[in-house]
Amino acid sequence: EVSFDPKDHQHLRYNPLRDTWVLVSAHRMKRPWAGQVEKPPEEHVPRHDPSNPLCPGNTRANGEVNPDYDSTFLFENDFPALQPDAPDPGSDQHPLFQSKAARGVCKVMCFHPWSDVTLPLMKKQEVVKVIDKWAELVEELGTTYPWVQIFENKGAMMGCSNPHPHCQVWASNFLPNEPALSDRCQRAYYQNHGEPLLLQYARQEAEKKERVVVESSDWLAVVPYWATWPYQTLLLPRRHVLRINDLTTEERGGLADIMKRLLTKYDNLFEISFPYSMGWHGAPTGPSLKEDNSHWQLHAHYYPPLLRSATVKKFMVGYEMLAQDQRDLTPEQAAEKLRNLPEEHFKTRGH
Amino acid sequence: EVSFDPKDHQHLRYNPLRDTWVLVSAHRMKRPWAGQVEKPPEEHVPRHDPSNPLCPGNTRANGEVNPDYDSTFLFENDFPALQPDAPDPGSDQHPLFQSKAARGVCKVMCFHPWSDVTLPLMKKQEVVKVIDKWAELVEELGTTYPWVQIFENKGAMMGCSNPHPHCQVWASNFLPNEPALSDRCQRAYYQNHGEPLLLQYARQEAEKKERVVVESSDWLAVVPYWATWPYQTLLLPRRHVLRINDLTTEERGGLADIMKRLLTKYDNLFEISFPYSMGWHGAPTGPSLKEDNSHWQLHAHYYPPLLRSATVKKFMVGYEMLAQDQRDLTPEQAAEKLRNLPEEHFKTRGH
Ligand SMILES: O=P(O)(O)O[C@H]1O[C@H](CO)[C@@H](O)[C@H](O)[C@H]1O
Ligand SMILES: O=P(O)(O)O[C@H]1O[C@H](CO)[C@@H](O)[C@H](O)[C@H]1O
Repeated sequence: EVSFDPKDHQHLRYNPLRDTWVLVSAHRMKRPWAGQVEKPPEEHVPRHDPSNPLCPGNTRANGEVNPDYDSTFLFENDFPALQPDAPDPGSDQHPLFQSKAARGVCKVMCFHPWSDVTLPLMKKQEVVKVIDKWAELVEELGTTYPWVQIFENKGAMMGCSNPHPHCQVWASNFLPNEPALSDRCQRAYYQNHGEPLLLQYARQEAEKKERVVVESSDWLAVVPYWATWPYQTLLLPRRHVLRINDLTTEERGGLADIMKRLLTKYDNLFEISFPYSMGWHGAPTGPSLKEDNSHWQLHAHYYPPLLRSATVKKFMVGYEMLAQDQRDLTPEQAAEKLRNLPEEHFKTRGH
Repeated sequence: EVSFDPKDHQHLRYNPLRDTWVLVSAHRMKRPWAGQVEKPPEEHVPRHDPSNPLCPGNTRANGEVNPDYDSTFLFENDFPALQPDAPDPGSDQHPLFQSKAARGVCKVMCFHPWSDVTLPLMKKQEVVKVIDKWAELVEELGTTYPWVQIFENKGAMMGCSNPHPHCQVWASNFLPNEPALSDRCQRAYYQNHGEPLLLQYARQEAEKKERVVVESSDWLAVVPYWATWPYQTLLLPRRHVLRINDLTTEERGGLADIMKRLLTKYDNLFEISFPYSMGWHGAPTGPSLKEDNSHWQLHAHYYPPLLRSATVKKFMVGYEMLAQDQRDLTPEQAAEKLRNLPEEHFKTRGH
């Protein structure tokens, strides 16, 4: 009888936040790769590009001129997927042709006046300003909108079409699929176990240690037990926090620190500016502000596409799209790799 | 009061097969694209490449020599994500650390001995042979395995690492997430409406016509009302059919025809060999063979990544991964574009 080794034997793992399973087949890393190779991220981004619509003082698509900002800078997306005033589609009565009104706003937020920095290369106090702005936006837009999605697409590989450091904030009059699913799962867990799912999870991971990437007194970043993307991470406060605007000043400082540490490790993994999509999930807002949301715990998901090197990503295609996500190394292997990387950024090493 | 126009006003549409919503923001096509550009698909693939492990007579990674096949050719994946004999992970009792045994087989099936053809360029009788083999595999592997996933990753953009025309077949001892969800949705619909969801849907679409791409007496291909990928299609038999091995000889001929027509239009859209991931969903097998599966209807999903041109794809990233899928043109616009394309392949035009 061969005894089970997660590195050698494929198995399924359960994702309690999405009520789905992932197929872990770690022996697949052994296969050679003869497929598509990506362009590595641009190395030499100019600090100020007069033709970049995100830089201070430049003119955007709609003719507006950016101020000479010296910290974060927020503006309305010039091609928003959500607008505040779209008319209602009305209702086709057939259950197979259902539509609904979608209303909202899409904002873009520059992190810094310079195009040649990213979060891990920014000063801690500059990152705190980004966090404060995120909190402010959730507070403001959340007074009416049930969901405020903060997300960052980083790198051309993740569909980001501008190298200037920025994120987006889309607020909607509906609770989107992913947070709706996460809400359902966290609520059911809370009802069954009397404690928030992610609070219990963070405590377990802090004890087990094998999936921890970085931690501090307030925060924890792990490759979750159920990760689908090769180097996916989950960033969690240790205290029970519903929304990003509930973080204390101290916790915001701690968050800036741990983000810088995590993202430095990401960049150091393949010695490139590491591409990913990331975003925050916290308790729903708008009408939900008046409801009990104790089952929720604030967290950020990081979904990086790379698998083997700076230029070979994981393709989530045929089997993944039609059947189930599949990963080629164990979450423990990924966590160990990241954990063992230096916390000094490869670009500033030796400076 | 502005009246609702799906081309101008963002709205949500319901996907009854997945119980999720998609955000349709068709006005987004107007934004300029300055982001990542893909390599167009390889134009000149040699008919026989002595170093390609999928060609007749060549040696594969494990030392096996391919026969001099002249039709389809089936072999075991040399780096399988599923193997028949993996040991059981045992059960960690904590509900947040659940794992399960995963067992199965992964096969690769070459469509044709030549590397420079694709399904739309193959003869109808050659495509019928592919369909017959698919049916045979579902029949065979389905005697024990609850799910047999047939899928094709086409093009380097979709993670396909070999230009030789081929698909994969992964059979598993578990029902994966996607078919499990589809099973749940189709079952609930059947219980509420007394007719299979997709049978009713096909009839409605055949009447409405606005989302039909190609149709015949036996088959129908539409851009579904709830499509997420720009040129996604759904291929359906008109008769109630549970599994691909239930298709009659005549229906297999009809399927070969409509596949050739659909894929020719795909190739003609941007005059390249169109990348996509596709796969079949039919009623579960194994233990389910003894159960009532009347709620199921056989269908194929085609998920092509391209949006704007042969080299600009749709990025399903930040908002899509963290909140909800979003599309940039209406399904009706996509269907109309495809419908109006010629049914003669651009590569053989004028021959
Ligand atoms: O098995 P292949 O074709 O080498 O691999 C491709 O398809 C698999 C199944 O969809 C994916 O898991 C891989 O990421 C992809 O590169
Ligand atoms: O708004 P951007 O950055 O131009 O666009 C990017 O992010 C959006 C939100 O995830 C996606 O819908 C687009 O496909 C992607 O290219």
